[in-house]
Amino acid sequence: MTATPLGPGPEFDRIRAIAAVLGSRATGLGDDCAIVRVGTKTLALSTDASVEGVHFRREWLSLEEVGWRATAGCLSDLAAAGALPIGVLVALTMPAADPPAAFASVMDGVGRVVASVGGTVLGGDLTKGDVRSITVTGIGRVESVIGRQGARPGDELWVTGELGGARAAWMAMQAGREPDTAARARFALPVPRVAAGRRLVEGGARAMIDLSDGLAGDARHLAAASRVMLRIDLAQLPCHPAARVEAETQGEPAEVFAAKGGEDYELLVVMPPGATGNVGIAWSRIGQVESGEGVVLELAGRAVALEGYDHFA
Amino acid sequence: MTATPLGPGPEFDRIRAIAAVLGSRATGLGDDCAIVRVGTKTLALSTDASVEGVHFRREWLSLEEVGWRATAGCLSDLAAAGALPIGVLVALTMPAADPPAAFASVMDGVGRVVASVGGTVLGGDLTKGDVRSITVTGIGRVESVIGRQGARPGDELWVTGELGGARAAWMAMQAGREPDTAARARFALPVPRVAAGRRLVEGGARAMIDLSDGLAGDARHLAAASRVMLRIDLAQLPCHPAARVEAETQGEPAEVFAAKGGEDYELLVVMPPGATGNVGIAWSRIGQVESGEGVVLELAGRAVALEGYDHFA
Repeated sequence: MTATPLGPGPEFDRIRAIAAVLGSRATGLGDDCAIVRVGTKTLALSTDASVEGVHFRREWLSLEEVGWRATAGCLSDLAAAGALPIGVLVALTMPAADPPAAFASVMDGVGRVVASVGGTVLGGDLTKGDVRSITVTGIGRVESVIGRQGARPGDELWVTGELGGARAAWMAMQAGREPDTAARARFALPVPRVAAGRRLVEGGARAMIDLSDGLAGDARHLAAASRVMLRIDLAQLPCHPAARVEAETQGEPAEVFAAKGGEDYELLVVMPPGATGNVGIAWSRIGQVESGEGVVLELAGRAVALEGYDHFA
Repeated sequence: MTATPLGPGPEFDRIRAIAAVLGSRATGLGDDCAIVRVGTKTLALSTDASVEGVHFRREWLSLEEVGWRATAGCLSDLAAAGALPIGVLVALTMPAADPPAAFASVMDGVGRVVASVGGTVLGGDLTKGDVRSITVTGIGRVESVIGRQGARPGDELWVTGELGGARAAWMAMQAGREPDTAARARFALPVPRVAAGRRLVEGGARAMIDLSDGLAGDARHLAAASRVMLRIDLAQLPCHPAARVEAETQGEPAEVFAAKGGEDYELLVVMPPGATGNVGIAWSRIGQVESGEGVVLELAGRAVALEGYDHFA
């Protein structure tokens, strides 16, 4: 059985149960991407489902944004594998009453974000169903394989961009408030860090994961897969400006608010000591890799307990 | 715009609308599989969604069968491309209350059918949702590309196996009757014709499509893509024994009953004149390719009007 070790939680218990029953009929479960060698080339593949009422609400997003956001989530997995996207396949379920233009709107959003990273829409499947859902499968080329494994004690932990923007928008919309414009863009039209992912791999990155379920949970997966402990100094977390504002509303330290945020689709990356270089966007050193297991989050010298998002918790 | 021409119908109007809005951001929409060249190799990819209440009912299928059947539908697309499957990625949506064992049961069915054609489960995504659904994306290697295009006037039209078995089971279950055992197996555990598809390509097949939406509809797609007319003699249709029994119950000629049946996942294949050879299972010549457009179905010298299944009709 070749499943990558995962962090704790009922979602990951399900993946462990699947890996146990599949045995040798599965290869490489549990990582962001499947790695497939074809001739002399290596491919990364990832599939990602977005379900109405679970991942998105129609009153919060246009149909174009539904398509963009679902696809960006998949392309973010390719980014964390350092892959150059070739394209995506899209299975789209919509009510039979939705007109052809509604399907085209979703796919317009898909096409825009795929084109933004140099890929195309390769194909798909249309199905009627009362609950809208979109499953995007991405395929890309990788030059050298990187996953969640590979972090070693002494390495440095970095994160791209700013965290908490998507959560700031989500909290505002949940409360019936108008979200900050920039924060809403982070939520509705996230930018997959494809270019940064490739530069980080070229720059010697040892392990990488995209932040889709919150820093604590995703860091735990990386720690479990690499069999190391990650120590994160939350004071170093780059916070989105709207996250600072929203955190104050919630009476929470901005860094804790940002660490809780899922779906920023930034990259958490482990670099060898002394990492430097230009990855095309800001990136911040937020911690270090130590011997041990699990993740320690600290703020002003005190440990902070945080969970990642778990679909089945 | 590179979409393959499709037959008529509201489902295909939606694909046409998508192809129009995507323009050059899409490549090769409308065929069973996406064809991707990687280095010197060629890959076929297909994605297929199965939604509870639309594609399956839990009272009709075990969870293993849900997984098998959804995966077989995807592998059947690879079969029609003459591909050798590498593996599948699976996005699985189930209620949060379903225990890990339920997820493992679905994936056991996935793993069994993938292993039966020499592939593995490469990865996936788990999501909670009130409506169960499973989207399977398959990837395989192809030696020479075959699709729906390529039929020429004078060619012969063949079909593998027997038709109507899955429909016979479906009709019985719809009516609350116990289905014929063999017919139920055709419905619940369809066998993707991967080996036959590869032999047919090696034997010179010019065009191929799998029968998932009924002979009439799928033949129309093939005719549209190849810009030819297909003339089918329904008397030559190989009918599943249970289809003969069920057709009599319905007061319908067995061949018409079988032609209406979707989800048999047999292959409809265009061969050059004088085709012979062993494809590992029975195959039957059912018609010919002529100049013109559309599909003419005849039984005992009379034209028969039939529609294919359309998700959005």
